[in-house]
Amino acid sequence: MILITYTKPLSKLIGHFEKFPGIGPRTAQRLALFILKQPESTIRDFSEALLEAHSNVGRCKKCFNLTSEDECEICKNTQRNQKLICVVAETKDLLALERAREFKGVYHVIGGLISPMDSVGPELLEIRSLVERVSKSEIDEIILALTPSVEGDTTSLYIGKLLAPFTKVTRIAYGLPMGSELEYVDEVTLARALEGRTNLN
Amino acid sequence: MILITYTKPLSKLIGHFEKFPGIGPRTAQRLALFILKQPESTIRDFSEALLEAHSNVGRCKKCFNLTSEDECEICKNTQRNQKLICVVAETKDLLALERAREFKGVYHVIGGLISPMDSVGPELLEIRSLVERVSKSEIDEIILALTPSVEGDTTSLYIGKLLAPFTKVTRIAYGLPMGSELEYVDEVTLARALEGRTNLN
Repeated sequence: MILITYTKPLSKLIGHFEKFPGIGPRTAQRLALFILKQPESTIRDFSEALLEAHSNVGRCKKCFNLTSEDECEICKNTQRNQKLICVVAETKDLLALERAREFKGVYHVIGGLISPMDSVGPELLEIRSLVERVSKSEIDEIILALTPSVEGDTTSLYIGKLLAPFTKVTRIAYGLPMGSELEYVDEVTLARALEGRTNLN
Repeated sequence: MILITYTKPLSKLIGHFEKFPGIGPRTAQRLALFILKQPESTIRDFSEALLEAHSNVGRCKKCFNLTSEDECEICKNTQRNQKLICVVAETKDLLALERAREFKGVYHVIGGLISPMDSVGPELLEIRSLVERVSKSEIDEIILALTPSVEGDTTSLYIGKLLAPFTKVTRIAYGLPMGSELEYVDEVTLARALEGRTNLN
């Protein structure tokens, strides 16, 4: 919805906000008007934070979690069990598990799910690096925490077969309703799903 | 909700998004992760749009609508009836009326409502400029389109008394439910409210 009554710099800004996920035209307008009301220093800080996060945040060399250093804070944390790896599709899933405060191991973020429909094969995901990581160090258990869907199940089975020769592979329990997004599941359900994980090999 | 697992530039960016109206911690996280996935050029454009809108968008000298020039596009538009002024509290209310596509006159944005509880007196609003504008030029009618609330009614009565010597003053009909925000009322209701306006003097 473009209105002739917006002045150009404002309509441009609203256009940017409309591209964000879950932001409709009215929310975009509200956010843009909010920006105009802020002191200039706040907007400069925000603008710098955007560029800084975008250029400085990369992937952990070990687990592919987001980090601004070589290794992420979870991989560097000696309090966490480095022999227990939880495999997730995306960083947002890792953050959801962290909110559940149930898991004390480390992660491996594969970057998506195998999906022939979207031409996403295993070679596009961080699966080879996972196999390498597991084969090179002593790992007690791999927990697969992927969304319960056709793609999630396919990916779980694929990784399960590859890792079976090296270590124990489990999958978090089907406590999650089918088709739901891991990101939005409540903490208690996620904790239950971790507890009730079942053996795959 | 601050998580130790966010890397600093990311948590800083999330913090900025959390300050936006109507954006909670999870939406802020989703928006920040979305930013990281965008190409750098998009983020540079967005960052520039923020600064440009903030520094270039000011107030119209005539009606105090947002504009990047001296006079806003509505005031400069010769197709619009310059003798019919609609008084609104905020720019977002003006935009809501524009969406209703019912009003063909011009506006005066007073910048808020009289509210003794919040120490907002008439002198903090663009009411003096409105009286001056009405007294200096030939105006057929002033339509007051303020939120139906104690503050809105007070402001309407105050402006109504001040302008009565100069011209006809009307108020949009009470078709709006009490306590609602003008910004969120649907277009049809707004159009009805404009049609059914009543005489104040």
